[in-house]
Amino acid sequence: MSFQPPIPPAEREIRRVCVVGAGAIGSLLAAHLSRVCEIWVLTRRAEHAERLRRDGLTVSGKSELVASPQATADVAELPEFDLGIIAVKATELEHAGRRLSGLAPQATMMTIQNGLGAEEVIARYGDWPLISSVTFMSGTRRSDVHIEYELDTATWLGPWAGTGTDYGIVEAVAALINASGLKAEAMADLLPAQWSKLIFNSAINSVSALTELPHVALYADEDEPSSLGLVVRALVEEGKAVAAAAGIELQDDPWEMNRLAVARGETLSSDYAHVPSMLTDVLAQRATEVEFIAGAIHREATKHGVAVPVTAAAHQLIKGKQASWRLRRPAEVSG
Amino acid sequence: MSFQPPIPPAEREIRRVCVVGAGAIGSLLAAHLSRVCEIWVLTRRAEHAERLRRDGLTVSGKSELVASPQATADVAELPEFDLGIIAVKATELEHAGRRLSGLAPQATMMTIQNGLGAEEVIARYGDWPLISSVTFMSGTRRSDVHIEYELDTATWLGPWAGTGTDYGIVEAVAALINASGLKAEAMADLLPAQWSKLIFNSAINSVSALTELPHVALYADEDEPSSLGLVVRALVEEGKAVAAAAGIELQDDPWEMNRLAVARGETLSSDYAHVPSMLTDVLAQRATEVEFIAGAIHREATKHGVAVPVTAAAHQLIKGKQASWRLRRPAEVSG
Repeated sequence: MSFQPPIPPAEREIRRVCVVGAGAIGSLLAAHLSRVCEIWVLTRRAEHAERLRRDGLTVSGKSELVASPQATADVAELPEFDLGIIAVKATELEHAGRRLSGLAPQATMMTIQNGLGAEEVIARYGDWPLISSVTFMSGTRRSDVHIEYELDTATWLGPWAGTGTDYGIVEAVAALINASGLKAEAMADLLPAQWSKLIFNSAINSVSALTELPHVALYADEDEPSSLGLVVRALVEEGKAVAAAAGIELQDDPWEMNRLAVARGETLSSDYAHVPSMLTDVLAQRATEVEFIAGAIHREATKHGVAVPVTAAAHQLIKGKQASWRLRRPAEVSG
Repeated sequence: MSFQPPIPPAEREIRRVCVVGAGAIGSLLAAHLSRVCEIWVLTRRAEHAERLRRDGLTVSGKSELVASPQATADVAELPEFDLGIIAVKATELEHAGRRLSGLAPQATMMTIQNGLGAEEVIARYGDWPLISSVTFMSGTRRSDVHIEYELDTATWLGPWAGTGTDYGIVEAVAALINASGLKAEAMADLLPAQWSKLIFNSAINSVSALTELPHVALYADEDEPSSLGLVVRALVEEGKAVAAAAGIELQDDPWEMNRLAVARGETLSSDYAHVPSMLTDVLAQRATEVEFIAGAIHREATKHGVAVPVTAAAHQLIKGKQASWRLRRPAEVSG
């Protein structure tokens, strides 16, 4: 009788991962995880899946690799999988949920969007246990099959309270991501980290969407009554008041995150530090993730009876700005 | 001995008017007033004065006339005058004040800018009695020498408290404007009207500058928590609180002004109703009048200890937006 050591949960349970959405974050995860398990990428466009099957997926920058994931734009072609990573933009969550509905009943699903509320959307489409995550890594999509990996900072994962997800599976997913060459950390309670990043994002993305300024030193300038740092500060203070009313103790101070990011941006030329994702969307006249960022804080504030006049204004103004694109070019804009 | 009836003040005192700035409002005033007195137009560009001298000034639309004012870009060429109408953009007031300094010591000067604070700027450059005014007329500049007269609504005038201007001269100027074919009304206290329009402008211009939306029905929509009308409403309420703290009773409710303008805009196609002046500036990436509009309410609020978080945010965001033009195109943008 030979002794067999127990197989770690990560290796035992997660053999096949479906990454939904192959933007920068989805592609980074799909490429790295291809080293440690079978990967299926579910794309929106058939030609994107076709190129991935033909050319593989290249990562340059902080990692250098070429992966060969399976890829399809047709959910009927997906085999059963153990873990689904929903890496679409927040505005595409409903669409992703509808596509996944009825699939992989044994799977765990993980959301990785900016802001708050992605889990609620996916939960409407299935009974999967859900993992929440926030990621601090970043990359730039050079093409459908090539991602530049820029900031190699961690992704934090936690069980989503709404589905009472077992912490063991969260640890297993974190172990798998770490084994793949990316950085991950499991946390029993993700809310302090998720809200810190939410509030930071609400301030920085709202200001960038409305001013079209990249995240430059002006965001921390409070010298004059008209200084831009004061509106960043107001958005941060409102977010902190909502977090406090919701009983969440923040992991990091969002104003300090702003100050440090600006200081870092002055020495680096990283796209991540300079162009917030919502500004990228605004410049392309694409629907932004505002409902999951400033909109989410606005909704939570209403629920908890906290006044957030500046956050509400940002939410309303960004929606108005999106409406201006439709007014001017009815045929070209989708959101 | 023959009896002579007293000559009315308008005819006695105002024989020569200098209109400073020949944008839409300055040109409408210069052209109409040419019917009743001698007009000198002081332009910024020499070629603009030259074209006015050569081609005259044509008004179409609500009036049809061709006037032949004197015109110059050189203050040394200006004769003494009785009334100066400062019709430059608010951002050009300092420059206009410097040019006029030392000229026409017997003249009365009249400001006609949007917002608040134009009189203070001009008062720094001379001891002239000042007349405040707000205008509701509008036009579109078709060229340096052709103005389309669109909204033929009134201009309201009042003595500026800072110089204790005699009310008789205000009545004389109003009579002169009325005699010229435009509409004017003298008011002993202009502040209720000035502040009503200031607050209306702060809300509408701020929202248009940040969303790039013309003044459409969305500005009065309050159906959803993300509806644009709610930020208009918030800006109006903050403005009203500042007016109350400053002891000013508004002549019109700015929210009603918004509602009516939007309703009117749905039946008319007037540029005035649709594209607020600050949006025109934003689309041309020119410095806006924000310091005289939202910025003015922000300053008055600070003076009176009133919290105006949304107005302050609008002020800061618009300044940030202006900074984004400089960042991207350092050579092209002036303000």
